[in-house]
Amino acid sequence: MPRPERSAGEALVRVLRAGICNTDLELVKGYYPHRGVLGHEFVGVVEEGSADWLGRRVVGEINAVCGACVHCRSARVTHCANRTVLGIVGRDGAFADYLLLPEENLHRVPEQVDTDVATFVEPLAAALAIQQQIPIRPDDRVVLVGDGKLGQLIGQTLALTGCELLVVGRHEQKLALLSRRGIATGTAEDVEVGTFDLAVECTGNPQGFALARGALRPRGTLILKSTYAGNLAVDASGLVVDEIAVVGSRCGPFAPALRVLAAGRVDVEPLIQDRYGLEEGLVAFARARERGCLKVLLDIGED
Amino acid sequence: MPRPERSAGEALVRVLRAGICNTDLELVKGYYPHRGVLGHEFVGVVEEGSADWLGRRVVGEINAVCGACVHCRSARVTHCANRTVLGIVGRDGAFADYLLLPEENLHRVPEQVDTDVATFVEPLAAALAIQQQIPIRPDDRVVLVGDGKLGQLIGQTLALTGCELLVVGRHEQKLALLSRRGIATGTAEDVEVGTFDLAVECTGNPQGFALARGALRPRGTLILKSTYAGNLAVDASGLVVDEIAVVGSRCGPFAPALRVLAAGRVDVEPLIQDRYGLEEGLVAFARARERGCLKVLLDIGED
Repeated sequence: MPRPERSAGEALVRVLRAGICNTDLELVKGYYPHRGVLGHEFVGVVEEGSADWLGRRVVGEINAVCGACVHCRSARVTHCANRTVLGIVGRDGAFADYLLLPEENLHRVPEQVDTDVATFVEPLAAALAIQQQIPIRPDDRVVLVGDGKLGQLIGQTLALTGCELLVVGRHEQKLALLSRRGIATGTAEDVEVGTFDLAVECTGNPQGFALARGALRPRGTLILKSTYAGNLAVDASGLVVDEIAVVGSRCGPFAPALRVLAAGRVDVEPLIQDRYGLEEGLVAFARARERGCLKVLLDIGED
Repeated sequence: MPRPERSAGEALVRVLRAGICNTDLELVKGYYPHRGVLGHEFVGVVEEGSADWLGRRVVGEINAVCGACVHCRSARVTHCANRTVLGIVGRDGAFADYLLLPEENLHRVPEQVDTDVATFVEPLAAALAIQQQIPIRPDDRVVLVGDGKLGQLIGQTLALTGCELLVVGRHEQKLALLSRRGIATGTAEDVEVGTFDLAVECTGNPQGFALARGALRPRGTLILKSTYAGNLAVDASGLVVDEIAVVGSRCGPFAPALRVLAAGRVDVEPLIQDRYGLEEGLVAFARARERGCLKVLLDIGED
C-alpha cells in the first residue's frame, strides 16, 4: 500500500501492532461491503501531525466523524451520519504499515501499558460500553453468554462492578481463564431460568440469544453485543408480558479502557493466542478463524 | 354464574360497567389458555368487604399478587410469580354480575368521574406505563404507530408530556379524534426514517413493528405495547449497530390514571363506539371484533 496522504486534522500513524476481531472475519465473509484495508484494533506511533502528537504512541477511536450532524451535536458521535470507520466503513484500516485518523480520535498510551496490552483498548472500550448504557448495581445478578474474545473482556469488566456474575460458554479452556480470576463460570445447564437482572449476549447465535433471554427475570435487561447473520425470530409478546428491555451495544469509551489497563484491573495477555507478521496476514486470518481461537495479533512495525 | 365466595382480604364487587379489550378478543382466539369469565376493565360497587370499602364505587388493579415472592418484594408486583389476573389468568373476570378482587387492588372512583369514563382506568394506566418506564422529555420526537383503542389513549397521554408527537394509523376517523385534540397525525408515508427519539408500537403486527423501528434515530427507544401472533423476525444486528433499546410494556399505575381522568386531561367518551347488556355479550364481542371498532362497553349493573 502506498503511504497515505493526510487530510486536514488527520495524523499519519505508523502501525506497531494490530488485533484481528470477529468483525474482520465477518467483513471478509461479506457482512458489510467494505473495500480497502481491514483492521481497527491497533497501537501505533504518530509520524506526521501536529507537534503535540508527533512521536507519541497512540491508540485511536475508530469512528471518524463530521462534528456537525444531529448525532454529533447530540453526544452520540459514534453514530455520526457522515462517519467513516477505520477498516470497516470507507476508511482504510490498521492491517498496513500506516493509517490515517483524525487527531481528535487519538489517545496517548501511558508508558506503563505495553503495546500488546494496548492493542486491546478498542474491544475493552466496547466491553465498557455496557456500563456506559446501563447502570449495573453491585447486587445485580448478571449472566454473560459467550466466552470468546469479547466475552473474555466483558466478563472481566462486569466482574469489576461487584455484581453476582455467571459466565456461560462452551469452551472449558476459555472459561478457565475467567475462573482463574475468581469469576463464576458454567454451561447452559447452570443458568437458572427467569432469575437474572441482566443478561449479556455475545455469541451472535440464536441459541445464545435464547439462553440469555430465558435467564432474565421480568423487567430484566438483555444486552446484545454481537451481530447476527440474518434475522432473529423473537417472541415479541413475551417481551411485552415480561416487560423485558433489549438493548443493542456497540463502541465504547477509550479513556476508561486505558485507565483500566494502566491500573492492571483486567488481564489481557492470556488472551493472546498467536502472532504473525503482516506478510503472513492470510495465515493469521486462517488461524483467527479456527474454532476456540482467542486473539491473534499482527506484528507490523518496530517500537 | 353463581355469586362467588370471598377469600380472606377479598372484596365482592357488583359490576356496573365493563369494557372489551383486544386481549379479550385474543383470549377467545386462544392466545392464552384462560378458562372462566373474561373481562378486566370494569367499574363496580363493593357489596361485601371491610367497612371502609362497603358501598364504594371502585376500579381495580387486575393482578392479584402474593406479596411474598421475589418480584413482589422487588417493587414489581405486576410480575408476581404466583399472581392471578382478573379475567386472564386463573381468576374469573368482570363480564359477570359479580367479581372478586383483593381489597388492596381497589381504587375509589372520585365522584366527578362518570362510570363510563372510569371504565377506561385500566387501559389508561397501561398507556401511562410508558412514562413509568422511560423518561419522556418535552423535546423528544415521538412517533406512535397505531390508532386503535389503546393507541387513542397512548396518543393522548404522550401529548400531555409536551413531546413532539406524530400518531400514524390507517383509519381516518380514528386519527381525526386525535387531531381534534391538536395532535399531529399521518400515515406511514409521513414518518421520516431515522429521526425519532422514541417510537411506540401498538398495532401488534410486523408492519407496525417495522415502521416504528425504522423511524428511530440511533440509540432510540422502541416501546412495544401490543402482543404479536407468533414470532417476529428482527434484524438484531441492526439493533446492535444502531444501539436501539426495545422495551416491552404492559400494566401501568391506576392512581395517576384516575388523576388524569378526574382532571379531564384526556377525553375517553368519544372512544365509546357501542354498548350492550351482558345478555348480549356475544353480539358485543362480534361488534368489538369489527375492523375499525373502538371501545365496546357492557352495561352490567345499575349505579
